[in-house]
Amino acid sequence: MDTHTSVIDESPPPLDLSHHYSRTSKARAESRIKEFYRYFAIPGISNLAGVLPERFKLTPNRPNGSLGAIPRNTVSTSLSEEDAHLSVPKFSGTSDRLHEIDLKTALQYGTAQGYPPLYTFLRQFTRENMHPNVPYAEGPEIVLTCGSTDGFNKSVETLSNEWSAETQPISEREGILVEEFCYMNAIQCVQPRGLQIVPVRMDDEGMKATGHGGLRDVLSNWDEAMGKRPHLMYTVSTGQNPTGATLSMPRRKELYRLCQQYDVIIIEDDPYWHLQFPSVIGHDIARRYSSEPREGATKSSGFEFLDSLVPSYLSIDVDGRVVRLDTFSKTISPGCRLGWITAQPALIERILRITEVATQQPSGFVQAIVAEQLIGPHGSNDNGRGGGRDGKGWAVEGWVRWLAGLRGAYERRMRRMCGILDDGKYTLVSKGLCNKGIKTVEPWNIVDKVQMYDFAWPRGGMFVWIEMQLSTHPLHGRTEPGKLSHALWLHLTTKPYLVLVAPGTIFSPMPEIAEERGFVFYRLCFAAVEDEEVEAASHRFVEGVNSFWAKEDLGEIEELLGVDDRGRV
Amino acid sequence: MDTHTSVIDESPPPLDLSHHYSRTSKARAESRIKEFYRYFAIPGISNLAGVLPERFKLTPNRPNGSLGAIPRNTVSTSLSEEDAHLSVPKFSGTSDRLHEIDLKTALQYGTAQGYPPLYTFLRQFTRENMHPNVPYAEGPEIVLTCGSTDGFNKSVETLSNEWSAETQPISEREGILVEEFCYMNAIQCVQPRGLQIVPVRMDDEGMKATGHGGLRDVLSNWDEAMGKRPHLMYTVSTGQNPTGATLSMPRRKELYRLCQQYDVIIIEDDPYWHLQFPSVIGHDIARRYSSEPREGATKSSGFEFLDSLVPSYLSIDVDGRVVRLDTFSKTISPGCRLGWITAQPALIERILRITEVATQQPSGFVQAIVAEQLIGPHGSNDNGRGGGRDGKGWAVEGWVRWLAGLRGAYERRMRRMCGILDDGKYTLVSKGLCNKGIKTVEPWNIVDKVQMYDFAWPRGGMFVWIEMQLSTHPLHGRTEPGKLSHALWLHLTTKPYLVLVAPGTIFSPMPEIAEERGFVFYRLCFAAVEDEEVEAASHRFVEGVNSFWAKEDLGEIEELLGVDDRGRV
Repeated sequence: MDTHTSVIDESPPPLDLSHHYSRTSKARAESRIKEFYRYFAIPGISNLAGVLPERFKLTPNRPNGSLGAIPRNTVSTSLSEEDAHLSVPKFSGTSDRLHEIDLKTALQYGTAQGYPPLYTFLRQFTRENMHPNVPYAEGPEIVLTCGSTDGFNKSVETLSNEWSAETQPISEREGILVEEFCYMNAIQCVQPRGLQIVPVRMDDEGMKATGHGGLRDVLSNWDEAMGKRPHLMYTVSTGQNPTGATLSMPRRKELYRLCQQYDVIIIEDDPYWHLQFPSVIGHDIARRYSSEPREGATKSSGFEFLDSLVPSYLSIDVDGRVVRLDTFSKTISPGCRLGWITAQPALIERILRITEVATQQPSGFVQAIVAEQLIGPHGSNDNGRGGGRDGKGWAVEGWVRWLAGLRGAYERRMRRMCGILDDGKYTLVSKGLCNKGIKTVEPWNIVDKVQMYDFAWPRGGMFVWIEMQLSTHPLHGRTEPGKLSHALWLHLTTKPYLVLVAPGTIFSPMPEIAEERGFVFYRLCFAAVEDEEVEAASHRFVEGVNSFWAKEDLGEIEELLGVDDRGRV
Repeated sequence: MDTHTSVIDESPPPLDLSHHYSRTSKARAESRIKEFYRYFAIPGISNLAGVLPERFKLTPNRPNGSLGAIPRNTVSTSLSEEDAHLSVPKFSGTSDRLHEIDLKTALQYGTAQGYPPLYTFLRQFTRENMHPNVPYAEGPEIVLTCGSTDGFNKSVETLSNEWSAETQPISEREGILVEEFCYMNAIQCVQPRGLQIVPVRMDDEGMKATGHGGLRDVLSNWDEAMGKRPHLMYTVSTGQNPTGATLSMPRRKELYRLCQQYDVIIIEDDPYWHLQFPSVIGHDIARRYSSEPREGATKSSGFEFLDSLVPSYLSIDVDGRVVRLDTFSKTISPGCRLGWITAQPALIERILRITEVATQQPSGFVQAIVAEQLIGPHGSNDNGRGGGRDGKGWAVEGWVRWLAGLRGAYERRMRRMCGILDDGKYTLVSKGLCNKGIKTVEPWNIVDKVQMYDFAWPRGGMFVWIEMQLSTHPLHGRTEPGKLSHALWLHLTTKPYLVLVAPGTIFSPMPEIAEERGFVFYRLCFAAVEDEEVEAASHRFVEGVNSFWAKEDLGEIEELLGVDDRGRV
């Protein structure tokens, strides 16, 4: 493997992509506080400057005249003499590398990138375990965020200019490529900035590279009269939200090559990366994942579980054009609002400049709690416990086991839901001959077996994307399909079905998509409810759809829609 | 007092200031997830939609197949049946109002404004205790932030348009008024957006309303050829950073009236509000605070301590043009990154829209920890303790006692530092007659008593602003004053003085101010070091300045500056 290793070592550096930086991002200066760092390090100096590197110690910050207990794990930045040397408290059970602030890094990046022990742990995990094969010299850098929404917002601010029809010509309008159904929070972030939303068609794998409406089609036939050709892409590459699609490696490569050709930066939002489901076989595209030889992948992550996952776009990112968003929301807790961005160092440096004047680093409390979990208690004064049974931190091994365990739990829920949905796809509907009172016609003459919906078992993530076959409904043709779909959605929320699903319209990045085809889809999430409820609710969904397919009276549809107009709750 | 109360109740609503919203802010739509809220509330419904209001419960979120302990206080948003009714866990020792999510508020604002119990507590504290006399109908609203830097950044994004010399005429350039010396993080936030920085002159009270360079002068003589007249002001009204100045009520009123006249929105950053020092008397302007009758102040905060503080600009904000930033950084912990914005509801609503697509609400961990401290443990499953001795939450009473206690601790440090500085202002310098070897001249002929520096005792905050009297230095006139000041700054960091102070240049919002007069000032912070060190370091500062005033050889100055160029550490 030495040859391979040396190939990696001799990789060229990432491209200079600074032509993509926004005007504001180009204009951002470094915090001048960094000029003081070297003075902080003078032994015995009293810091009356009051310009502190944002650093934490996990001992109570109890001002004179204590008034009672203060929050546990209180975090303080007061620079005692001991601290002034840019040391951090020792942790037990972890390697020395994690114990020291890297002074060089601190001087270069400042302190907005995160609580040093956590930053160091995540940087190492990201570079060595998650993405051991990033193909540019020196590899990627990271910066902590207040979750992926924050990470996306900062990436967009770094990489796109605001545009306003009031004041600027259309030729200056920038654009962003998105999947034709996507996470609307991202759309709501970029739309007010004046960015043009440019949807790309999808199949069961996710974004299409070729064919009508695929990435090549969109980029090669771009009409400059509509604005600039998009130089950004937002994509959820694994277990896509809402469709559940996961991009295979061959598809990733195709899409990446197009992004190289047209100089597009890829913002990869990948909260579900660890939730890939190997048991989904018997599905054509599944083979495109599992049988894929990991060409170019010369280094192991060190863990069978991580090696088994379709790797990030970063693993083929020779240019350094991938900005990857990770989050603890799906692994530690939804409300923890902690994540990190991984990208080439120059891009991370620009994002850091924004971080310094926006959120600064994430709350020391959440960082300290997560660090304690992963790395272990902080010094002898900390009576907390790490994540391991012995009270030490999980370390990388424990963290990977945790991720694998989560995958198992979600995969089980997914299989329960999809099994029930698979069994319930079909129903019998009247051929329309069955008028009241006529009972002599044989059943095979009056009913048809029809398919009510279709879906692909997701290879990753938390969602099943159901395509309703509205054309098989007895009332098809007698009312608008959008109305039928909305009535079904409402019907499902009534007793005894009582299931709330997400209509495809709310994942349609443009109103035209919602009106044209968005209403055909429902997104079902198997992750937000417990195992037993997944099963019961899936059954109720099937029953609800069945009972809706039994409706032959338009009045019932109108009644459901009327209830909605009056408001239900 | 009934008459007064009814006057307040009959106050007109705040002005519609939407003409100040940025283009992006005007374009922000509400999250569509809110459309689902009423369905969440259907009894027994299974939420397969997976669109969750960001809500927390303080019980462990332990997925099946537990792999070990998970972080204490893990916050989860999983909607169990019990949760689906938009209830929250009961707290002990607090009023019922804090126990319930206000469904109406949730429907109106969404969930980005914060963890409901904490949001409710802070909203009530803000409206009833901090600012009981906000003079517009219905009073202000709040939204939680990731600290004041985040709050400022979001306020700026809501209230100003980016401008670029490349693409836009100067007539579209917006501006922001700032104190002539100010917190540079704010400048570094707005400058890359293309905003023009417009400094206003200060005196010991803070921003000047009248006179050369005062607010009236700047606004009334505005030259439109330089860009739009500023419609924003950034000000630290109490214990200003870096000057320590605190605006008296008469000055606040003068400045506010000018802001009304010229339609300026005031962003009041007030992290030191609770750190006002009543013991600073014998200073002319002190009387302008303490003897001020609280005209118009009809309601008490309920606490003598809060009533004794110079109130916020909000207390005179008849128009609703004040956006106030508060933070827990100076009261709970510097690294906690939690704060809130207070302003008229329409403005808060726009800031919420940004929050939804940027940070979302602050980390549930820090919110839960602070809520536990203030309100108490969350339900019977929570084995945490509140801030009180009995393990219950501090409640408002305890919180106010805590703030008063902090004030006392900082006031003591301030007095120690200022006492030593006062005693050390003067030194004896040679008249320049004292050549080597000549010992017959009488001492009173060869030395002068000169003042080395001057300062005003701060009436609030954490800083003392020292004006060096460089003209009294023996080498004055033989080298540039800026060099002299920098050499002194370096000299102070050497043994045996070992004090690091912040030079005025780094608080100069424009290079011209740094070059013209910024170098004359040093900011000393008495808050970042313990009592004993404050005393010792203040003495060493005085000794360092004294020994610097003894230098008569230009070579020594050059040597100090040379050391700097080579790098010290």
